[in-house]
Amino acid sequence: MTIAHPPKPDTALWVYAHPRRDSLNDRLLQAGTKALAQRYEVTVSDLYAQGFDPVLSERDLGDLADRPGNIAELAGDAYANGRLPADVREEQAKLAAAELLVVQFPLWWYGPPAILKGWFDRVLTSGFAYDDTDPELGVPRRYGDGGLVGRKALVVVTAGEDERSIGPRGISGDLDSLLFPITHGVLWYVGIEALDLHVVHDADSLGAEGVEEQVDRLVARLDGVAGERPRLFRRLRDGEYAGTRALREDLLPGRTDLGIHLADRG
Amino acid sequence: MTIAHPPKPDTALWVYAHPRRDSLNDRLLQAGTKALAQRYEVTVSDLYAQGFDPVLSERDLGDLADRPGNIAELAGDAYANGRLPADVREEQAKLAAAELLVVQFPLWWYGPPAILKGWFDRVLTSGFAYDDTDPELGVPRRYGDGGLVGRKALVVVTAGEDERSIGPRGISGDLDSLLFPITHGVLWYVGIEALDLHVVHDADSLGAEGVEEQVDRLVARLDGVAGERPRLFRRLRDGEYAGTRALREDLLPGRTDLGIHLADRG
Repeated sequence: MTIAHPPKPDTALWVYAHPRRDSLNDRLLQAGTKALAQRYEVTVSDLYAQGFDPVLSERDLGDLADRPGNIAELAGDAYANGRLPADVREEQAKLAAAELLVVQFPLWWYGPPAILKGWFDRVLTSGFAYDDTDPELGVPRRYGDGGLVGRKALVVVTAGEDERSIGPRGISGDLDSLLFPITHGVLWYVGIEALDLHVVHDADSLGAEGVEEQVDRLVARLDGVAGERPRLFRRLRDGEYAGTRALREDLLPGRTDLGIHLADRG
Repeated sequence: MTIAHPPKPDTALWVYAHPRRDSLNDRLLQAGTKALAQRYEVTVSDLYAQGFDPVLSERDLGDLADRPGNIAELAGDAYANGRLPADVREEQAKLAAAELLVVQFPLWWYGPPAILKGWFDRVLTSGFAYDDTDPELGVPRRYGDGGLVGRKALVVVTAGEDERSIGPRGISGDLDSLLFPITHGVLWYVGIEALDLHVVHDADSLGAEGVEEQVDRLVARLDGVAGERPRLFRRLRDGEYAGTRALREDLLPGRTDLGIHLADRG
């Protein structure tokens, strides 16, 4: 099984989606990238600073603009033809090189800010990040496979809410489920293995001392990140969703929560 | 309990987030708004056609730009001072008037396109859509309460995947859970009651006849939408999350899936 884009060892990409300097997120970014630079060559995609345009549109299609069809499929064709816009190609090159991906954002409306959602929408094109059915495997190159296999990702998220509001049975829904569309739907879909979420709770009420504690906690996490084991989901190609694309009835029978898609770590 | 923005009876806002004319989504929009116009005065927010900017930034803050603090809180202050940008004020006015909200989008990376996510990020400011603790109630005006209470919403979503892939136990996660950040985290948070999702599966492979069937199905749904009962979630103010903000231990003990937040329809 070939890896479409073999990462460069000890190279990291830090994708950052917060608008404000001198914010908690800015502190975490500065301290985090510095800590990571002890071991990795770190590239930062500071989406606000770059003025990244998150809106997937005809502009993404090069000479295929306005051609009938599905825009995501056409973007895949534009990738194949080398006609994606320069900003997308640049992000793809950074991502292709990175062995470790850090994605940092404040939780807005229980998801990523639009500028980050649009980075997924525009950068992770067909052909680059995932692919149609592999003739040899008989299944699509998705969910634990794909163009970006062999990478790990750390999601760093700040939330105004406390640990209980956004924990299991919390009124906002537990954060692992709320971010399943990213950890599983985006990252795992293209072959990237997400580590446990790094969550900063009560982000708007930490106080100066609390901020320092959170900075230290992130730095400590990053110091050990190379040795961390990811939270693997089940792979499409392993046959556990055989036939119907629903989880086989003999596996965790009766359960319908998102947790059924986690594989054992053993 | 006052309603901050009483809706105008028989007024609907259709928020549309798809880039392409002559697409399945365009067909659903055209037929859907026409059907709805039999009963409602319909306004359309066609986010791509409007060139809506989804990036919440200093520009949203008026004269509070670059002031230290949390950008969402500052946007709430800008709302209170009448200093939000014109495009946001216009969307807020449309939403404030509408009794029924339709939100239509293609599922991209298991969530809304960035242009729609940013509509939530920018339009649903503090003060307008939700509020801090009510002194009389002793709880925040959120989750089943808030500035937009008294409204219903229909989420219309097209997905390339089949019903099984994205159903209960489906490899992509079930769509009700994947869109919980919208139905619960956005809509219910600000007091809007979501109806059952309207999902068009296999959206990229319907063929001409399949498209007509889906158009008819949406029209039929909209013909009866005024009489539909919403899928209510639990209200923060009802005491079921008392004290800890986690669901009381005597309610559905042991369960941690997102379904625990649904209230009985009875």
